[in-house]
Amino acid sequence: MNNVPHLIEHLNFDTTFLVFDLLAVFMFAASGALAAIRKKYDFIGVLMLSFVSGLGGGLIRDAIFIQAGPPKAVTDSKYLIIILAAFLLAMIFHGRMHRLKRTIMIVDALGLGAYGVVGAQAALQEGLVPLAAVLVGVFNATGAGLIRDVLIREEPIIFKPGQFYAGAAILGCSVFVLMVVLGNSDHTVAAIVATLTAFSVRMLSIYFNWQTRPILDEDDRS
Amino acid sequence: MNNVPHLIEHLNFDTTFLVFDLLAVFMFAASGALAAIRKKYDFIGVLMLSFVSGLGGGLIRDAIFIQAGPPKAVTDSKYLIIILAAFLLAMIFHGRMHRLKRTIMIVDALGLGAYGVVGAQAALQEGLVPLAAVLVGVFNATGAGLIRDVLIREEPIIFKPGQFYAGAAILGCSVFVLMVVLGNSDHTVAAIVATLTAFSVRMLSIYFNWQTRPILDEDDRS
Amino acid sequence: MNNVPHLIEHLNFDTTFLVFDLLAVFMFAASGALAAIRKKYDFIGVLMLSFVSGLGGGLIRDAIFIQAGPPKAVTDSKYLIIILAAFLLAMIFHGRMHRLKRTIMIVDALGLGAYGVVGAQAALQEGLVPLAAVLVGVFNATGAGLIRDVLIREEPIIFKPGQFYAGAAILGCSVFVLMVVLGNSDHTVAAIVATLTAFSVRMLSIYFNWQTRPILDEDDRS
Repeated sequence: MNNVPHLIEHLNFDTTFLVFDLLAVFMFAASGALAAIRKKYDFIGVLMLSFVSGLGGGLIRDAIFIQAGPPKAVTDSKYLIIILAAFLLAMIFHGRMHRLKRTIMIVDALGLGAYGVVGAQAALQEGLVPLAAVLVGVFNATGAGLIRDVLIREEPIIFKPGQFYAGAAILGCSVFVLMVVLGNSDHTVAAIVATLTAFSVRMLSIYFNWQTRPILDEDDRS
Repeated sequence: MNNVPHLIEHLNFDTTFLVFDLLAVFMFAASGALAAIRKKYDFIGVLMLSFVSGLGGGLIRDAIFIQAGPPKAVTDSKYLIIILAAFLLAMIFHGRMHRLKRTIMIVDALGLGAYGVVGAQAALQEGLVPLAAVLVGVFNATGAGLIRDVLIREEPIIFKPGQFYAGAAILGCSVFVLMVVLGNSDHTVAAIVATLTAFSVRMLSIYFNWQTRPILDEDDRS
Repeated sequence: MNNVPHLIEHLNFDTTFLVFDLLAVFMFAASGALAAIRKKYDFIGVLMLSFVSGLGGGLIRDAIFIQAGPPKAVTDSKYLIIILAAFLLAMIFHGRMHRLKRTIMIVDALGLGAYGVVGAQAALQEGLVPLAAVLVGVFNATGAGLIRDVLIREEPIIFKPGQFYAGAAILGCSVFVLMVVLGNSDHTVAAIVATLTAFSVRMLSIYFNWQTRPILDEDDRS
């Protein structure tokens, strides 16, 4: 762990965030494409759902909450190119995706934390209030999945009892905002701690099968 | 009634609107939370639906139609804190909510009118055309319910035949815009008249069980 | 065909686009109204779905992707008036719409191409990257149908296998952007070629019943 400060020194904060942002867009696009393939959509449907899922979280962040000009996704070609790449890879390899289940799960958990931080950071930078920064981070991380589920007409999984998902994002974003706003931490350090927090909660929740319970059910028993 | 002009004199228009806005956000957040509890969502699902429902109408107004910088909900902490309060109260008291049915119905009818006026007023202030002000008012008042129903996968109730709901909002918003634009009325007077119009239509429609009918059905009979 | 250059000379590009835009808004509003009538919604539900469908594509274009102030639909009364007209016509003539099936299909195919071009052109004008211009065009042309289907709780038809629809829009928008960006073509010429491309693909796909196939199905057979 004694090489962490050294590593941080060499990290360009903006570059790190761009990488996290692109990675998250890639994963969301791929998960949208795979969902579309599973729902027996055609070529065009898979393509469109890749774009909607890949862009969803970022569009909610930039177009709904932050509103500082056109969303990055339409002014920087990298975003759309990476969605096309995710679409093509999903089209080619979807039959073999179950072998990658473990890898996808780990990358997804990492992305959940990282993308939450990307959204919270963007919100703080534009002068939103701290509580709103947590909110923007959480919707940045979970919005794409929400839109994907609404469009393919499945009940949004993030609402339903199960392993911690949105909960991990809420925790990670809260840690980031608290460290930066109250603790006056360095943004890069806060980003790493917050991402690892969300990642750990998500992975532990999968490993130990921690389950949330419906509110009504608990109530009925009491 | 002769103390009304006196009362108006002491009303600060912006404060009145802030109060109406916060009240509406509170009610929408609570209704989202209760719907989520009923759908057997977990803690996180109830929390997220509180936020989406509470913010829905205001985000449609600010981010989609008006577009004058970040929505008020993310630049003023009061909005998010009141949503958290609605969430907590719904979590604690949801088992006893049916006893409050009558109160909720009255507050909801009042909010429907008031929130429509808030949206219409904001739209006029930003220079939107009068017809658009009515539209923004109606979506401000009914958008949260629409988003809530889409997310929990129930057919939006505002589309379906039943007692006047969106209809009351349309009438109230039209009265407000007509009074302000054509009648050159004082905004506060117009706001009170319009809110009471929507409130009365909504309450009378519940009391006498006025029902709208499907268009196709009427046609089939003729 | 030798009168085409003559015709183009007299075309005012902005006027042409306004006409296409209004025509598309009219058609989307009418299709939303008809869908609402079919779903047995009441007067208010049909009215609201007319507005949501009529505005959907343009709002996605202006409020989500382009973000240059309030959407045109709320600053220019023409848009809302034409939606009211579409609503009224649908209310009066919905029983006889099946006789107009052929006409509607042709107008719809023309609108699909034209509205894609309207979106792509608006995106290029605001400095979005070329790939984003295609994306904005496609969502401008197909977004209203997507929102309509989500709201009335039907699985979005543009995702599902069938005749080319979104595919025709993708092709048309790509032709427009390629001609303008790479080919340096005159915008009006590119608009006509692109609209006719999308129109032809759509009409041929209906005439010869070209069908797309689900991705998963193809895979299962191989």
